[in-house]
Amino acid sequence: MRKILIVGAGKSSSYLIKYLLDKSESENLYITIGDLNVDNAKKLVGNRKNTSIIHLDVFDAKSRTSAVSDADIIISMLPARFHVEVAKDCITYKKHMVTASYVSDEMQALNEDAKANNLVFMNEIGVDPGIDHMSAMKVINEIRNKGGQMILFESFTGGLVAPESDNNLWNYKFTWNPRNVVVAGQGGAAKFLQENQFKYIPYNRLFRRTEFLDVPNYGRFEAYANRDSLKYQSVYGLENVRTLYRGTMRRVGFSRAWNVFAQLGMTDDSYTIEDSKNMSYRDFVNAFLAYSPTDSVELKFRHALKIDQDDIVWDKFLELDIFNPDKKVELEKATPAEILQKILMDSWALSDDDKDMIVMYHKFGYELNGEKHQIDSTMVTIGEDQTYTAMAKTVGLPVAIATLAILNGKIKTPGVQIPVTAEVYEPILEELKSYGIQFIEKEVTYYGYNPLNR
Amino acid sequence: MRKILIVGAGKSSSYLIKYLLDKSESENLYITIGDLNVDNAKKLVGNRKNTSIIHLDVFDAKSRTSAVSDADIIISMLPARFHVEVAKDCITYKKHMVTASYVSDEMQALNEDAKANNLVFMNEIGVDPGIDHMSAMKVINEIRNKGGQMILFESFTGGLVAPESDNNLWNYKFTWNPRNVVVAGQGGAAKFLQENQFKYIPYNRLFRRTEFLDVPNYGRFEAYANRDSLKYQSVYGLENVRTLYRGTMRRVGFSRAWNVFAQLGMTDDSYTIEDSKNMSYRDFVNAFLAYSPTDSVELKFRHALKIDQDDIVWDKFLELDIFNPDKKVELEKATPAEILQKILMDSWALSDDDKDMIVMYHKFGYELNGEKHQIDSTMVTIGEDQTYTAMAKTVGLPVAIATLAILNGKIKTPGVQIPVTAEVYEPILEELKSYGIQFIEKEVTYYGYNPLNR
Repeated sequence: MRKILIVGAGKSSSYLIKYLLDKSESENLYITIGDLNVDNAKKLVGNRKNTSIIHLDVFDAKSRTSAVSDADIIISMLPARFHVEVAKDCITYKKHMVTASYVSDEMQALNEDAKANNLVFMNEIGVDPGIDHMSAMKVINEIRNKGGQMILFESFTGGLVAPESDNNLWNYKFTWNPRNVVVAGQGGAAKFLQENQFKYIPYNRLFRRTEFLDVPNYGRFEAYANRDSLKYQSVYGLENVRTLYRGTMRRVGFSRAWNVFAQLGMTDDSYTIEDSKNMSYRDFVNAFLAYSPTDSVELKFRHALKIDQDDIVWDKFLELDIFNPDKKVELEKATPAEILQKILMDSWALSDDDKDMIVMYHKFGYELNGEKHQIDSTMVTIGEDQTYTAMAKTVGLPVAIATLAILNGKIKTPGVQIPVTAEVYEPILEELKSYGIQFIEKEVTYYGYNPLNR
Repeated sequence: MRKILIVGAGKSSSYLIKYLLDKSESENLYITIGDLNVDNAKKLVGNRKNTSIIHLDVFDAKSRTSAVSDADIIISMLPARFHVEVAKDCITYKKHMVTASYVSDEMQALNEDAKANNLVFMNEIGVDPGIDHMSAMKVINEIRNKGGQMILFESFTGGLVAPESDNNLWNYKFTWNPRNVVVAGQGGAAKFLQENQFKYIPYNRLFRRTEFLDVPNYGRFEAYANRDSLKYQSVYGLENVRTLYRGTMRRVGFSRAWNVFAQLGMTDDSYTIEDSKNMSYRDFVNAFLAYSPTDSVELKFRHALKIDQDDIVWDKFLELDIFNPDKKVELEKATPAEILQKILMDSWALSDDDKDMIVMYHKFGYELNGEKHQIDSTMVTIGEDQTYTAMAKTVGLPVAIATLAILNGKIKTPGVQIPVTAEVYEPILEELKSYGIQFIEKEVTYYGYNPLNR
């Protein structure tokens, strides 16, 4: 049997494991799952065949090298910073490797070794990064193949709550790491290209420079800019585009309300609040507002943020109960971001029967025979439940499909890589369709950024 | 003769050198001035007696130790990070030392050695830090001596343009390091105490949370919070105050206009702008505004910042000529802050006959016999010209007076210290009066933060 080692069996591994176990008979696979905590793996595997679960500490060289040397291909689902030890073993024992993480400098440094040993080190093959690369490169290459010249590329992804579970005023729940949501956008200005002009948005304006996106059957979304819009310009071969923009999708209205937290300083993760343990939610809000012996926290909040008495954004804050004087923060030496996260968890945690949703939206503008064209491509995936989530599906299935394709010699170009070549994305995108992960492409009129064209 | 070594003869050394030379006959002083560039020292010294100027590289151990060992006391006017080499030599050769800089960890680490050798290492004895410490501690100790209990301390300093040279709409010119002005307030939330509540202001709201201060004969100023209001709480013995706030003074209206630059991201010093060299001032502004093929940069600017057509803030931006399409930035790989500084220098550089001004404002609230009282203390110093500036005067005179007092054994408590004891501040404040640096103290009604009290 061909042996697959999965290192790390966290939240996003459910579909990955299921896919490989489902194929274990027909494809002659044996799946070993190693983790520090084996409980989740046990739950996922149940009493299925062709698999075993081992206790694995990636920092214990002996058990790690033993597990790696025993496998034919290794999937690392660990946080990105833990991949490199496994990757070095893969070089030593000449094993292929697959991850859903961004290529780190340490990973990139193994490229020559991987090539020399004819090993495929596939990375960024989850959803974002992953499906975004594949679905974008498919259309970009089709446009090029018919002689088109790319002039615009915009790409948006959102991890959101499914419409059937969307029952709060923010139209948002934490479907993934809440911390990343709270600190999103911090750490430097967002930079992108619009009609050949470089544009910069500081954090404090990020959530007020959104644009709208209409997704067929799912209504309207908004998006704010990612920090790294230019990151893939050369990887995608888009050096000559006039517009390059990547963003994060939310339901309409989220960003305007979220901006209030950003403005007040409640998303700051760089310092701790005095006596955070004993403060109430109301005290926390008040710490960011001027002192007054008489004025209410509510009115100071409205005044500071210029929120009119009939502004619908107000109800969003009431819903979060941020003015409650009795609910305590109960976090020792917490940063504003940590406290805000705790407050939001009260309202935005998924209920047992809630489902999540992954939404993706690409815009491709191009010139062909002197005319401008545009293709919009959208994808929506809804989760089954809280184990078989849309996130786990869109992350895990590409990883699983790629792993099998490497084992079967369908993906064979060696080296540290991401899925931007037809060899990789064509079979994977094709197979993803059978799992309902499908992009709807539509020819639309190219307007660019000129409203006069409309 | 007693030998004084001054290391570094930059902008703020004019009064320092003049004071010591004026006293050289009566006090039997010989002044050696060492600098990498001796031009400024030569200009300041002219053909006066009892002094020599030497070329001194503080990183050349041989010439540095030779100069230190030859002197009786050393004044370091270098940037703070360069003091420590000189300070270590002062321990080795058993010399007193004086600086106007904040006590660094490296400096503090020499405390035991300084005490063991009976050496005075006086720091923070310029204007801010320096005169602020002395003038505050004088009043605080007077209040304590009559049995009062401090409940409020607020302290504000501004380095501004003198009223007679104040001829632009911002009522501001660069009288000191322009870079520090452009990046002021960045690097973390401002933290202070108001009526026993800790308050936090993020950078993006710093310039909209100002308060007004009326200085007798000089009219109204505004102040925004410093980052470090709690820094001197224990040093001043203010552990039990209910309100502790330190701020930076500007003329009224400055902060509201400056906030526009902060909001747009133009004060960011953390990344470089693409092709900054060839962009116009107008291009620079436009880089922070959404793309439009038709709308003017002016209207996009007004719209983004919600500036009404008749808002007087608008003229401040016109005055700076930031919308000029012909003026080029001409700075290679510049950060937004560097480009903004260059644009501001066109308008805010001092003219040859401009004078500067230092303004200080303290508020002392206290309880005595069950009643609340307040003393407000203000100081204004105007410069003579662009050599004998108010900044040089208020930095250099305390340094010079302290140096002579140490030489004469009037200040003798050894160790690394700042001027918060009566031994130090009493003689210095007294002598500063004869140079026109004088605080006006006034009993005022204590209102605290309760407008209902008014």
